[in-house]
Amino acid sequence: MDQELLRARYGDDIPEAAALNDVLRLLINHRSCRHFSSDPLPEGLIETLVAAAQSAATSSNTQTFSVVVVEDAARRARLAELSNRQAFIAQAPVFLCWVADLSRLYRMGERHQQTLEGLDYLESFIVAAVDAALAAQNCVVGAESLGLGTVYVGGLRSKPEEVAKELALPPGAVALFGLSLGWPDPARATEIKPRLPQRLVLHREQYGITAEAETLTRYDETLADFSERQGMGRQAWTPRMMQRVGTPAALSGRHRMIEMLRNLGFPLK
Amino acid sequence: MDQELLRARYGDDIPEAAALNDVLRLLINHRSCRHFSSDPLPEGLIETLVAAAQSAATSSNTQTFSVVVVEDAARRARLAELSNRQAFIAQAPVFLCWVADLSRLYRMGERHQQTLEGLDYLESFIVAAVDAALAAQNCVVGAESLGLGTVYVGGLRSKPEEVAKELALPPGAVALFGLSLGWPDPARATEIKPRLPQRLVLHREQYGITAEAETLTRYDETLADFSERQGMGRQAWTPRMMQRVGTPAALSGRHRMIEMLRNLGFPLK
Repeated sequence: MDQELLRARYGDDIPEAAALNDVLRLLINHRSCRHFSSDPLPEGLIETLVAAAQSAATSSNTQTFSVVVVEDAARRARLAELSNRQAFIAQAPVFLCWVADLSRLYRMGERHQQTLEGLDYLESFIVAAVDAALAAQNCVVGAESLGLGTVYVGGLRSKPEEVAKELALPPGAVALFGLSLGWPDPARATEIKPRLPQRLVLHREQYGITAEAETLTRYDETLADFSERQGMGRQAWTPRMMQRVGTPAALSGRHRMIEMLRNLGFPLK
Repeated sequence: MDQELLRARYGDDIPEAAALNDVLRLLINHRSCRHFSSDPLPEGLIETLVAAAQSAATSSNTQTFSVVVVEDAARRARLAELSNRQAFIAQAPVFLCWVADLSRLYRMGERHQQTLEGLDYLESFIVAAVDAALAAQNCVVGAESLGLGTVYVGGLRSKPEEVAKELALPPGAVALFGLSLGWPDPARATEIKPRLPQRLVLHREQYGITAEAETLTRYDETLADFSERQGMGRQAWTPRMMQRVGTPAALSGRHRMIEMLRNLGFPLK
């Protein structure tokens, strides 16, 4: 069974892994969910998941993230509109906006009449982004352990100034990504998506690029097979990636990220 | 028992959470481990944890991260020296360097004689940083499910150019943070660290800052109590944070992050 799970994740390039336990199986079994049922979520669920999120490590305990939980259907529809019109944002009962949040510390400085200059640097934005991501991933793992489905929404970064207005974010806070959360639609089950073979991702002692081109040719085949089974035609990885990062226009407005973050109160020195 | 766990995490500000399951208990029970035993790690462990890491969501399946696994004691000692001299890096048997890695896609573009301009933007660095963080957190959860201890090392960003040389990173790759991994020293058990009350982190529909100052005063007390119990004196949150982000110098060299990332092949347009 564990071998089948690893085969789904890696195609024929299965790593020499140790025996799995239930948590590892849960993690490796992840797939994003883009079709939700309309069933409501249990009472106290969000507080439980946020407790899991806050329990993730955070740089020097700075806790530079927040989460805005959106349930209001009209607001979810507006946020879907601001996030490249992804239909599942309106469909899932909850949309969590994960915020890289230096504003709490900026306000602390103001209350104590001290300018906290360190916050103005790109480094502090990176700390906040990593804090938010570690927290969100704990939320996802906790949600999946309950049988819930999730999908991250990077499209929430396409119009961050308008999103900040919608969520009433203070200066020094930006919605870094969204997360739709709900019960998966049982009629729309999805497969595990194959990832890059470990030899391209896991390096021993130093970074190496042995046999990269050949390995990617094989991964292109594995992913094209997967995509065909999903009824999306034979989409290989290489052409998809070349398109995805080929031009500034392909970034869906996010080529303006430095300017947009500065407008939102991150000087990025 | 669940109430005790939540009390350890939140002091008296316990959220109205739903019932927990084993995975949620594991997540909420997290604490960083800074003292390791010298016991070796099981065969295949790293491959298993990397499979969990690669199973995390990744932006458009770009998979813009790598991990360099360092076991060599001399290299770990050198990396400890480059990371603000944290002793546990040399003590734990394994040090994982999590790499925000656009280099794989840059190389793909070169092989296909196409300039992938989208990679040159801050947005692509953010994608890579978030991908690396989501993956690393899955690794941490998997490790803790096996009884292992971990601690993140943001100090790995203090001298990223020298770290890149040590790890032979190609252009477009930067070690974003480290992770020491090993069996916890049973003689040095740690407590769960209290986090901010949920009312400061979890916002409903829109961001709110009601009663922030009073809530932080109470959190300062909770954290001072914790720190006293750990034998570190009464360290409250507010003064610690003011010091941590007060000046560029407090960033331990990371106030040069934009320049350092550009030197490593991230144009950050």
